[in-house]
Amino acid sequence: MPKRTSKPAAKAAASKSQKQNSACRVALIGFGTVGRAVAKILCESGDGSLRLTHICNRNVERKKQPWVPSDVIWTDDVQAVLKSDAQIVIELIGGLNPAEQIVRSALGSGKSVVTANKQLIARHGPDLLQLASSKGGQIEFGASVAGGVPVLPALRTGLCGDKLHGIAGILNGTCNYILSRIENARIPFSEALEEAQARGYAEADASEDLDGGDARAKLAILALAGLHSRVAPESVRARTIRAIDAVDFDYAAELGCTIRQISRADLKADTLFADVGPCLVPTDSPFGRVQRNLNLVLTSGQYGGDMAFLGAGAGGDPTAVAVVSDLMFVAQSLSAGGGKRSAASNVSTPAISNDFETPWYLRFFVRDQPGIVARLAQILAAHRLNIDSLLQKPGFEKSSLPFVITLEPCRDALLHPALEEMAGLDFAIRPCLCLPILR
Amino acid sequence: MPKRTSKPAAKAAASKSQKQNSACRVALIGFGTVGRAVAKILCESGDGSLRLTHICNRNVERKKQPWVPSDVIWTDDVQAVLKSDAQIVIELIGGLNPAEQIVRSALGSGKSVVTANKQLIARHGPDLLQLASSKGGQIEFGASVAGGVPVLPALRTGLCGDKLHGIAGILNGTCNYILSRIENARIPFSEALEEAQARGYAEADASEDLDGGDARAKLAILALAGLHSRVAPESVRARTIRAIDAVDFDYAAELGCTIRQISRADLKADTLFADVGPCLVPTDSPFGRVQRNLNLVLTSGQYGGDMAFLGAGAGGDPTAVAVVSDLMFVAQSLSAGGGKRSAASNVSTPAISNDFETPWYLRFFVRDQPGIVARLAQILAAHRLNIDSLLQKPGFEKSSLPFVITLEPCRDALLHPALEEMAGLDFAIRPCLCLPILR
Repeated sequence: MPKRTSKPAAKAAASKSQKQNSACRVALIGFGTVGRAVAKILCESGDGSLRLTHICNRNVERKKQPWVPSDVIWTDDVQAVLKSDAQIVIELIGGLNPAEQIVRSALGSGKSVVTANKQLIARHGPDLLQLASSKGGQIEFGASVAGGVPVLPALRTGLCGDKLHGIAGILNGTCNYILSRIENARIPFSEALEEAQARGYAEADASEDLDGGDARAKLAILALAGLHSRVAPESVRARTIRAIDAVDFDYAAELGCTIRQISRADLKADTLFADVGPCLVPTDSPFGRVQRNLNLVLTSGQYGGDMAFLGAGAGGDPTAVAVVSDLMFVAQSLSAGGGKRSAASNVSTPAISNDFETPWYLRFFVRDQPGIVARLAQILAAHRLNIDSLLQKPGFEKSSLPFVITLEPCRDALLHPALEEMAGLDFAIRPCLCLPILR
Repeated sequence: MPKRTSKPAAKAAASKSQKQNSACRVALIGFGTVGRAVAKILCESGDGSLRLTHICNRNVERKKQPWVPSDVIWTDDVQAVLKSDAQIVIELIGGLNPAEQIVRSALGSGKSVVTANKQLIARHGPDLLQLASSKGGQIEFGASVAGGVPVLPALRTGLCGDKLHGIAGILNGTCNYILSRIENARIPFSEALEEAQARGYAEADASEDLDGGDARAKLAILALAGLHSRVAPESVRARTIRAIDAVDFDYAAELGCTIRQISRADLKADTLFADVGPCLVPTDSPFGRVQRNLNLVLTSGQYGGDMAFLGAGAGGDPTAVAVVSDLMFVAQSLSAGGGKRSAASNVSTPAISNDFETPWYLRFFVRDQPGIVARLAQILAAHRLNIDSLLQKPGFEKSSLPFVITLEPCRDALLHPALEEMAGLDFAIRPCLCLPILR
């Protein structure tokens, strides 16, 4: 047996009972996959500093678990939980309604809140931090981005001494699963999506994931926590991954790249440049090597340079670790005399722009005929855009011929009018796919 | 301009002066590269929550900087700092003497301490945590491992809800620089070392780095923070990288591997398996891809699975970020009513073992003669060790012929007697190099 810093047994028992009394009272609202995993950790591995008092869910009777101690109250009455003496409410029901009202009500009565709700924090994070601060409570949301990867806690602690100016990440495991499946098996997008759905990595309606809604909510939270910037998720451009074709991975490979859904935010002076969507990234870069449903976040700081965080971005257990870690942090603050987490007072509201200057990948599907390249080159030249390379792999049908033009770095805003002009060309049988190339 | 959550100017000024008064008083002892970078961040980027009161160094007169505010006291008298009203002492002189006495004295008088001193924390961390706790102060040491990479803060916050059972890392930038130089340029060890010294990545006497003393101190700190295990650094076996030859990278490449100095600790029941030294790692693994002087730490948890942290492991500015982040954390705790960081009470003292079970890489330099392979195979067989592969690349001189045997997984303790027997063979012109192969 390892030697523990030991105490006489009687004293230890007394200390344990004392600890039980001084334990922080915690109520759990939402008993789905994550909620269940949180309860399990609290019941199995607790160090006595946290005591689960309530589990609240609809139809709670059929949710009951034998491993939950008998003194935990099972209820479907949220109001009863909010009126109880629980000091921390864990909100794990997700979505805005009724989660927002529950969180506001808990904070309003001086309770602290731990939540994994990205939509709620992305939209109302600054307000809720302010509300918590004014009522003497805290709100923590470490599980709302990148699941178990401790990016938000690192921003709060180990990186708070730096001045960050950039954050970029693979924040959506569904997109990464689908893109890395197309990359590795060269299957059509639709097949990769079906496979992800069959394996439980994508929902029946995966729009939030595929079209970037999920990732941009997470990016807004990272911008708040790391760049002290208030960003409405809707103000960030989100580009879908639905248009990505297996052939795009062939052309990307020619350029030493693969394709990933990247969420990025760069703070320059008073403007936050932000974008979510598929990008070309070098195959041997940190982003290019992220496979399956993992998450990766890179931060760039004035003093500390670049840092990378990699891990499981979702799943009940990893997300539950983030929730329990937040609980322990809040409980420690409460026992030290109350939440003093600095509120949203140092948060600025920068202008949001998607006008990044990057090289570009343009992929066309055309009905082959003479003069196509000349026509496209003419349009690009008229907009003063420089072609970097022109790629056309053999072996495709003339009726639906894919080829690629890459452009030297230029601003998004300058490229856009050229793309519109190209959209009207009669030989284009699909809209041009336009992806930033990140180096 | 970004819109800030604004206040009337007069009120803001009043609030600023109030903030100045309520700011946490911080004294800096040690004004070398890191100390200077810390002072610079405090003077340039402060949010008003920290006020630098003293800078203490030998021969302080020639250290003075024009960018330090005039109300900061420059002194070479440590006692004056310890007797001052500073609430937090930053110890950046390094080494055990007099750093240990200074830290004990500061903690003993109820001050808090932030330090980057790995030797001090590796040897006395649990005691110092206990002392701080008993006197109402705190001691933080986020900068003592992996410089600016926020591993220790992540262990304290985002991962504290997990039960970690393993930690492994590239913790010494000097070794990684040298090994990745030999890998990329196939130069001799001595040349890579000279180059590292010329570029300031290695000291004139680099023994602490090369022979693993530095890395095992850091591993002991990670084991304390992440595995709640008290580990005397000397109890961890440290193997040198001095015996690594350029030819080892050729043979490693044959096995799909490269060579890195890896520090690892695995907690299994009541035993902590720990080792520091060069290992074969797959070229396309996270460890294999770490180049130059970067640091990488992987953690393995029961609930959250594997996490990776990558960044600059040393350097003034990144290390200073870790120090300032710790300062902000301590200041926040103090303003919330005092340090309540749980002390070393949940720390156990496991048995330490280096008896990992892994596959092995054995490299011999021999004076070629008939029967060498037969003799070695005979010894291995007598010890019931299974050969996995035998590699002999052409083109070497017979008088100093390198060749490699890899073994199927076996325990370190079983391999050792065989190695001793081999050491006595007359054809061996160098001791056998024996490296674990990590998969």
